[in-house]
Amino acid sequence: MHFTMPRVNSARIQEALDRFARIGATPDGGVERLCFSEEDWAGREELRRWWEQMGLVVRTDPAANMFARREGTEARPVILLGSHLDTVPRGGRFDGALGVIVATEVVRCLIEAGITTRHPLELVNFTAEEPNAFGRSTIGSRAVAGRLALPELAARNPGGQTIAEGLRRVGGDPDRIEQARRPEGTIAAFLELHIEQGRRLEAAGVPVGVVTHIAGIRRLSCRLSGEANHSGTTRMADRKDALAGAAELTLAVEELARSAGDPAVGTVGRIEVIPNAPNIVPGQVSLAVEFRHADPAALDRLAEAFEGRVKEVAARRGLEGLVETVTAFRPVPMNTVIVETLARACDALEVPYLRLHSMAGHDAGHIAAIAPTGMLFVASRDGKSHTPEEWSDPKAIEQAAQVMLAAVMELDAALP
Amino acid sequence: MHFTMPRVNSARIQEALDRFARIGATPDGGVERLCFSEEDWAGREELRRWWEQMGLVVRTDPAANMFARREGTEARPVILLGSHLDTVPRGGRFDGALGVIVATEVVRCLIEAGITTRHPLELVNFTAEEPNAFGRSTIGSRAVAGRLALPELAARNPGGQTIAEGLRRVGGDPDRIEQARRPEGTIAAFLELHIEQGRRLEAAGVPVGVVTHIAGIRRLSCRLSGEANHSGTTRMADRKDALAGAAELTLAVEELARSAGDPAVGTVGRIEVIPNAPNIVPGQVSLAVEFRHADPAALDRLAEAFEGRVKEVAARRGLEGLVETVTAFRPVPMNTVIVETLARACDALEVPYLRLHSMAGHDAGHIAAIAPTGMLFVASRDGKSHTPEEWSDPKAIEQAAQVMLAAVMELDAALP
Repeated sequence: MHFTMPRVNSARIQEALDRFARIGATPDGGVERLCFSEEDWAGREELRRWWEQMGLVVRTDPAANMFARREGTEARPVILLGSHLDTVPRGGRFDGALGVIVATEVVRCLIEAGITTRHPLELVNFTAEEPNAFGRSTIGSRAVAGRLALPELAARNPGGQTIAEGLRRVGGDPDRIEQARRPEGTIAAFLELHIEQGRRLEAAGVPVGVVTHIAGIRRLSCRLSGEANHSGTTRMADRKDALAGAAELTLAVEELARSAGDPAVGTVGRIEVIPNAPNIVPGQVSLAVEFRHADPAALDRLAEAFEGRVKEVAARRGLEGLVETVTAFRPVPMNTVIVETLARACDALEVPYLRLHSMAGHDAGHIAAIAPTGMLFVASRDGKSHTPEEWSDPKAIEQAAQVMLAAVMELDAALP
Repeated sequence: MHFTMPRVNSARIQEALDRFARIGATPDGGVERLCFSEEDWAGREELRRWWEQMGLVVRTDPAANMFARREGTEARPVILLGSHLDTVPRGGRFDGALGVIVATEVVRCLIEAGITTRHPLELVNFTAEEPNAFGRSTIGSRAVAGRLALPELAARNPGGQTIAEGLRRVGGDPDRIEQARRPEGTIAAFLELHIEQGRRLEAAGVPVGVVTHIAGIRRLSCRLSGEANHSGTTRMADRKDALAGAAELTLAVEELARSAGDPAVGTVGRIEVIPNAPNIVPGQVSLAVEFRHADPAALDRLAEAFEGRVKEVAARRGLEGLVETVTAFRPVPMNTVIVETLARACDALEVPYLRLHSMAGHDAGHIAAIAPTGMLFVASRDGKSHTPEEWSDPKAIEQAAQVMLAAVMELDAALP
């Protein structure tokens, strides 16, 4: 490092975490700040005041993404830092908010130290990152990356509200949504700090993770059709039990992911049985199957192997089996310059770290399509996330924030 | 046989089947005559007219069971014949109605032949035999057997109606429900003809079955608790996946029933997953497990073996497992005198038959607690029941009806 590096202020980060945790606080110590809710709006207003107090220029784009800008010394593309403030139902205080707060702390340190970067700096709070009642996540970052399809704005939550209406409630302008897109070349780098949401860092005893890939996700819908029949009078040999077939396939998903080895994961998270009555042999079952892996070829192999199992089980049990691909997100590699910069910053600051895959999706996964992108993880206690029990150690957060500050300074100096 | 036996009239049976199938007919050829409905009432009114036209005295007891009586030559306990007219939602034309119609044909033949039995004969249409929206079945026969608990009358359907209100709608008097009870000794024999609802007779190529036992039913509720977790960030090795455990147990139920051999059946008919989201490792699963068997010791062994599997799976997977017994109906043997009488009648009439277990529950299972009871099965095409596709061959019905007539005459002569 060739400059005097400011130190991030851990107490200030913790104070900000507490402050945002009160917006949508749940009695059990969690946070519920669902996208487009009153609490979302209150969080945005708090953030706007905070950013404006720092002297930043705040704007909201048509996707309701909030940006705060500090000009640089040169007319360059921006270095973008941030994450999201929305949470899942009964979520925790760290997922999303921590990335916005640490990014803000980084810029604040630079301001207080009187350091002006060559690149303009922008802070971001992306809209509606989390899975939500509209069935569409990462709405803000996908709008920025040009990956939000217009018909998605008409998706409704069970209350009948559309995403377009939701966007309007928090300052967006869905009629101009295409203008939220940031052309390639306008963002020099995007850095997102996020909690790990897993146990890899904790298991390795390190506070910080440098993300090398965001894992791909393959979601399959599998439907098995057999014959609904009387549970008493239908002999075992005469049954076409869709649930027994589904049980085999549930175990197959687990076994396939285990055999593929880390970082492969495979999950049957959802099952629907018809008619789902205690005294009727199940006639039809739908399974939501998900595989994740950092390697696209491995993902293909997992999906193919699963389809093979469906065929085998269906044939053996006299069932009809149908598999459809619901979602196919390819793995996203992080920018190698940014990965190495983050790793060097860890080394220089003597912060223990691990290179790892992000097994969860993130806004960074979409911004990576239009800009060099990197992610920094902070260890999650017990790997918990999307729960009030979510927790990251203040010391680990401080170390990660310091790494981010160092990386921003190095990237600002080094980027062409 | 020591007397001239009248012949049952097959055309008349088929005509009556058609007539009752029109009451609650569904567009797909099925019948929906739910207990306490308009259709139930219409069916009862049709039956009352029919029975009264035959010169029988019709009465309705406090449980809304309908009885039609023909006096005998001696002051003896009655020979009771019949079944039920109510159906499941989207049911068929045979389940229940056939037993009432054939019983009526038997008495009609005796009347027309001028044969007066020593025992009074009673026809019966039992109230609410089928599983229904109140969650209580065999209401009428249990009232007769003294097995209906008063609090059950307060059970409500999703519309908020109580069983007591339902009984009043069809001529019952719930305030006097205890008077529906028939003391032991007042019924000399109860005979119920019913469709088999299974494939055993069809598989053996015989039209008629003589029931030796009504199988016992053991319903267990099994709850597995693990840890709901992010489907991406939670490594396979770190999971406590309640659904994967439930899948093993679903297959265990199947395997245990198969190993026990016919007539054992084991079913997981219902599964509830929390939170049941595609991207969350399931944290809690409830299974409705059912075993049926004609042998009580075998039922005990199945339930014990299942509990052992739950313990093993829960321990291996780090889950909590809980098993509760929801229902324990013991197997009910049919009266041996009646069984042998029915078998002899088949032999005498050269009607091929099989001795078998009833794997479904029936009104006869409750009446057996207070009176010598027997059941006759008619083969079901493809084993279908509780569906518009329910079908039994007119020839098989005629043969069964003739067997029943012969058995009634022999029992009337032979019973002490």
